[in-house]
Amino acid sequence: MTTPSSICSASDLAVLLTTSSNFNSSAAAANFLCSHLSAISHKFSDTNFAVDTTYLLFSTYIVFTMQIGFAMLSAGSIRAKNTKNIMLCSILDAASGSVTYYLFGFAFAFGTPSNGFIGGPRNFFALNSFPEGSGYDFSFFLFQWTYAITASGITSGSMAERTQFTAYLISSFFLTGFVYPIVSHWFWSNDGWASPTRSNDILFIGSGAIDFAGSGVVHMVGGITGLWGSLILGPRIGRFNHKENTSSEIRGHSVPLVVLGTLMLWLGWYGFTAGYFLTILKAYNRSPQYYGQWSAIGRTTVTTTLSGCTAALTSMFTSRFLVGHWSVTHVCTGLLSGLVAISSGCAVVEPWAAIVCGFVASWVTIGLNWLAKICKYDDPLQAAQVHGGCGAWGLLFTGLFAAKNYMSEVYGGQSGRPHGLFMGGGLKLLGAQMVQIIAIFGWVTLTMGFLFYGLHKMNLLRVSVKEEKCGIDMTRHGGFAYGAHVEDADWVKPWNQEAETER
Amino acid sequence: MTTPSSICSASDLAVLLTTSSNFNSSAAAANFLCSHLSAISHKFSDTNFAVDTTYLLFSTYIVFTMQIGFAMLSAGSIRAKNTKNIMLCSILDAASGSVTYYLFGFAFAFGTPSNGFIGGPRNFFALNSFPEGSGYDFSFFLFQWTYAITASGITSGSMAERTQFTAYLISSFFLTGFVYPIVSHWFWSNDGWASPTRSNDILFIGSGAIDFAGSGVVHMVGGITGLWGSLILGPRIGRFNHKENTSSEIRGHSVPLVVLGTLMLWLGWYGFTAGYFLTILKAYNRSPQYYGQWSAIGRTTVTTTLSGCTAALTSMFTSRFLVGHWSVTHVCTGLLSGLVAISSGCAVVEPWAAIVCGFVASWVTIGLNWLAKICKYDDPLQAAQVHGGCGAWGLLFTGLFAAKNYMSEVYGGQSGRPHGLFMGGGLKLLGAQMVQIIAIFGWVTLTMGFLFYGLHKMNLLRVSVKEEKCGIDMTRHGGFAYGAHVEDADWVKPWNQEAETER
Amino acid sequence: MTTPSSICSASDLAVLLTTSSNFNSSAAAANFLCSHLSAISHKFSDTNFAVDTTYLLFSTYIVFTMQIGFAMLSAGSIRAKNTKNIMLCSILDAASGSVTYYLFGFAFAFGTPSNGFIGGPRNFFALNSFPEGSGYDFSFFLFQWTYAITASGITSGSMAERTQFTAYLISSFFLTGFVYPIVSHWFWSNDGWASPTRSNDILFIGSGAIDFAGSGVVHMVGGITGLWGSLILGPRIGRFNHKENTSSEIRGHSVPLVVLGTLMLWLGWYGFTAGYFLTILKAYNRSPQYYGQWSAIGRTTVTTTLSGCTAALTSMFTSRFLVGHWSVTHVCTGLLSGLVAISSGCAVVEPWAAIVCGFVASWVTIGLNWLAKICKYDDPLQAAQVHGGCGAWGLLFTGLFAAKNYMSEVYGGQSGRPHGLFMGGGLKLLGAQMVQIIAIFGWVTLTMGFLFYGLHKMNLLRVSVKEEKCGIDMTRHGGFAYGAHVEDADWVKPWNQEAETER
Repeated sequence: MTTPSSICSASDLAVLLTTSSNFNSSAAAANFLCSHLSAISHKFSDTNFAVDTTYLLFSTYIVFTMQIGFAMLSAGSIRAKNTKNIMLCSILDAASGSVTYYLFGFAFAFGTPSNGFIGGPRNFFALNSFPEGSGYDFSFFLFQWTYAITASGITSGSMAERTQFTAYLISSFFLTGFVYPIVSHWFWSNDGWASPTRSNDILFIGSGAIDFAGSGVVHMVGGITGLWGSLILGPRIGRFNHKENTSSEIRGHSVPLVVLGTLMLWLGWYGFTAGYFLTILKAYNRSPQYYGQWSAIGRTTVTTTLSGCTAALTSMFTSRFLVGHWSVTHVCTGLLSGLVAISSGCAVVEPWAAIVCGFVASWVTIGLNWLAKICKYDDPLQAAQVHGGCGAWGLLFTGLFAAKNYMSEVYGGQSGRPHGLFMGGGLKLLGAQMVQIIAIFGWVTLTMGFLFYGLHKMNLLRVSVKEEKCGIDMTRHGGFAYGAHVEDADWVKPWNQEAETER
Repeated sequence: MTTPSSICSASDLAVLLTTSSNFNSSAAAANFLCSHLSAISHKFSDTNFAVDTTYLLFSTYIVFTMQIGFAMLSAGSIRAKNTKNIMLCSILDAASGSVTYYLFGFAFAFGTPSNGFIGGPRNFFALNSFPEGSGYDFSFFLFQWTYAITASGITSGSMAERTQFTAYLISSFFLTGFVYPIVSHWFWSNDGWASPTRSNDILFIGSGAIDFAGSGVVHMVGGITGLWGSLILGPRIGRFNHKENTSSEIRGHSVPLVVLGTLMLWLGWYGFTAGYFLTILKAYNRSPQYYGQWSAIGRTTVTTTLSGCTAALTSMFTSRFLVGHWSVTHVCTGLLSGLVAISSGCAVVEPWAAIVCGFVASWVTIGLNWLAKICKYDDPLQAAQVHGGCGAWGLLFTGLFAAKNYMSEVYGGQSGRPHGLFMGGGLKLLGAQMVQIIAIFGWVTLTMGFLFYGLHKMNLLRVSVKEEKCGIDMTRHGGFAYGAHVEDADWVKPWNQEAETER
Repeated sequence: MTTPSSICSASDLAVLLTTSSNFNSSAAAANFLCSHLSAISHKFSDTNFAVDTTYLLFSTYIVFTMQIGFAMLSAGSIRAKNTKNIMLCSILDAASGSVTYYLFGFAFAFGTPSNGFIGGPRNFFALNSFPEGSGYDFSFFLFQWTYAITASGITSGSMAERTQFTAYLISSFFLTGFVYPIVSHWFWSNDGWASPTRSNDILFIGSGAIDFAGSGVVHMVGGITGLWGSLILGPRIGRFNHKENTSSEIRGHSVPLVVLGTLMLWLGWYGFTAGYFLTILKAYNRSPQYYGQWSAIGRTTVTTTLSGCTAALTSMFTSRFLVGHWSVTHVCTGLLSGLVAISSGCAVVEPWAAIVCGFVASWVTIGLNWLAKICKYDDPLQAAQVHGGCGAWGLLFTGLFAAKNYMSEVYGGQSGRPHGLFMGGGLKLLGAQMVQIIAIFGWVTLTMGFLFYGLHKMNLLRVSVKEEKCGIDMTRHGGFAYGAHVEDADWVKPWNQEAETER
């Protein structure tokens, strides 16, 4: 079939149709029309690629702002003397992560052919033979990379202010290159043992676990890694007084950085949840026609917003009544709790359910913070509580509130797909979600937990007491993050005096 | 009509066309072709939804960066002792606003069926029966929400450093949930009494007011709210000395935060003005074909840029000659003045007119600042001047400079539509714009003005003198925003000495 | 040909086809079908404009974040006493640049008709007769403007802490309005003497220089301008001790601002490199069909990421071994070096080559910094080293590693197009790249170098010794960037005591 000339000539076609009792002429007319229709079909295919890639790439950029958010939030939440250290960790997660994920992480996650446990590296190491025949494109690689570095970005907060930089380097490398990719393979690739997009007959518990944007895959992995890191490191000097059984809060040095970071994370979360649809130009088989993936994406941004905001408000009022003041940092923590929790179910729950999600998420963090204090667990950014705890709650929440019609639209397939327990969908999905929690906890413990334990035993994990008190910026990073410039001070006064006399 | 098979079979079609003196065969051929054309039409509809939603959602994200901008600008523009307070107000506007706007604000603004004054809540409370049959989608809700919180975000600046947090909570709730939605209904819904998109015969003054992206709906509402709040609160302690009739500027504590915030607002403004087209895939009935909504959107980004930049430059040179130095904060204020003013007419004026808009906007702010000083009006962020004053100027500007062809393209309908006075369009549009200014001023005064007055009378509005001097962060928010960490200081020196000897 | 009714009526068409031995009926059928196909063709054209404009505009917004990045990076990298000065320079570059570029810069760059050296201003001054018949749209203007202000933004870093503000004003005006536009005309317009998109027979050295996103056009221009500015200004007081032949590093006052700025630049770079494709909905003549401009754009984001990250890691380990600590500022500098270097070849090299690019870029900066110290050249932000040096390396890199198939896809035309020397493409491209380096160096030297020299001779370039020691913020910009608020300090303690007794 030849490519049609771009302009349809009515006079030429009329001649062909006139004599259409003649087969040759009819064949020419049919060929003419079909070649046009075929070109249109190709053009639609091109349009689909272009629109979906546009959607995916800009979502990726939005997700990337989460790195800026983590860096600023972390920096502001700790003492000034370790600011350079934690920001270096943030940049390093992204920089080292890109090379690692390019070389083998992406292959472990999405490489084909693969089995249920790990992706097949053969064709995907260093994006070898990519994207030919993979079903993915470069934009998908970049998108997945931003999720990988988000997971490792969470970890640095838990381990802040007392970890040797080399130890962090090793753990970040191991997490982004191996531990995280395996988990994402389990739940997000088409071959993972618990993936909800395997062919129907072999879905895990008839359902597969639903973790749309990674309450579990990203946040629990980061949070549990942080939990083990922080537990093995032990609390910061001065956080708990074991003799007198008291604790004193160690406050961050800059609330503006905390707020800047939190708001950047909020922005980034729209890419994180709504972006994971990957495509936007996809009709759902449902009338009216205005309803398609574009609408589901819009709904996802609304559930994301409502969960985060409800959690922020809940935390604000709770801290007012429990602690006695309106705390902006608690509001930030609450907001993030709600955003973490909705990441799993964002695409398949009703907006009102997102309010429930956020309300409970706020209390999950508050409860775990209370527990942490009792257990003398010191997590400078509450990363284990927020990302680990609310990540787990988010998975359960999906098992309770996932709506039937949204499940079949977003995950396709049969209408009898298990959905949320409270939405009349039975226990299967909830069961799958619980298994995901256990699987992630176990896998991260087995890998990252043992890694930290080994580093600890080799005395590579924690800095010395003297270093910790002095600040890691001074001892390992060439000096403090802020300049004092005392040398300028005594110059100012005489100048001002002279300046005034000169006028 | 059946869905066509995706591939057009020329041989099958040829058979049908050959025997087309037979009606049944012709019917099959026609059915075949029309089913293909119908599928193409559906596919175009899907494409339109996907492209327009992509455009709208990413514009929404860009608008959201204005919240980050406001938070940073506000924080930097006030004293360090109230930083947490004002940033909490910023986050709260967004967080509380999302729940409020979801529950009823959006319904008051865009609910149907409605009357000219207020939207019909029946189907839209808590997005009930949404988006079915509403003509809107979730992305439109999120987009409108970002405008609602922008309006309330303006207010906190005017009332900074002396407002009780509870009072701010109440006023923010009332503004986002009721006062602002009503105004947006008037001018932006298809039913509002002054909407330019009502059916032609009943347009207000034959024109409707033109407030494309909200110089009036967003900025004047926020600015006038701030004006009343700040007026009733009275100036900050130390700002004016009534006995000696002097005033002393109270400087903000961090210019980098001011600049960061201003640049983020600038970025966000591209979403704010260009985003309000809502759709991008829309041809205008005009040749050449390259000209359509996409081109009008591009032109809007250019008018936005030129107005803001001209105002920034005007303010820079003016402050150099009036005050004697090149002031970066004045440049920031000027920039925002220009951006506020162009928000009304951005889509319907020529680029050169945007330069006029910005130039005057700079002077509006300078003039109002001079007036404020005389009247002993203390607005820490000059919000009433910039957003109220330049918002009003922006509305007038549109009445003077709106171009004929752009009006008919962007607002559709008849070619005889009233346009700018200076562009030969008569006085009708200018009249409608003046009515909008009066209507907004009156409505906000009646609602927010009385609310603040009531709070004031109940002693709920302003903090005590002692609190104000001490800083609200310390008394209501659990301590200052910045950590001193004096405890670390004496550790540093001995370590350095030892470190050197160890080497 | 009439516009078709939107619905295809199978019954009507059937009648026409049945009687199609009658020519009139056939003509009607043909007309019917062709008018439908023609409308489809128009609709595709509209879709292309909308999708491509969406892509270009959001890329533009992303590039704009680089301005935020430069402002924060610059502010953090210098001493607190000059913070307002450098941030004002950043805002000014953007604000003044927009007016300048609108009035004549854009015309010099892309105006038609033009010659090889300079664009024809007639139709493009102040966007006169634009966009009619220009082949460009407003979004293209805005996009190009962000590149122009990026070039001038680079310069302020080199000249920081000692330049008179008026001198900077003049040089920024001259750079954005004249010097930069000419260079972009040479390499990026369709008429430039070294443009790779001229008609085939007259390509410079049969190839044209390949500078996809501006390693040369933007970064070298900015870097070489900074080099001359900084050289003629001389080093800051205290940087080098000529008597004792020692040097002391002058450290920036806020590493969090440095990191914030660097990460914002990283984000912006995705718009900078991937955005310069200008369009995304463009198929390449190659099967499989999934492969088109969308895929090349994705690959470009990957090369951008890998080059930046490799350079960051290289700088991190190098500084660890050379300087003895893990330096976050060196990592930031390294990252930017890699991003600058890849900007030329990003679209036409393999991902693995980007790793080579970044590795070498890190060493280029390290080497030039070593050289600068020897030569007693003081560039506060290392702008000449990073943007000038790595910009030049990026041009050479493209001449070495540009891949054959990517060249023909991205730059179109013949398959025998010269490509990278190491990829078997001969020396022609490398030659063209070298000529570009020389041309840019020469042109910028002739224009900006002489301008700075003239300003220097007129004593307009550098501030006085007293001013420099005191800080330009105090002497020219109305006071320091940070507020001390000592007046509040003694209020805090009594309040706390009372507050406690009141409870």
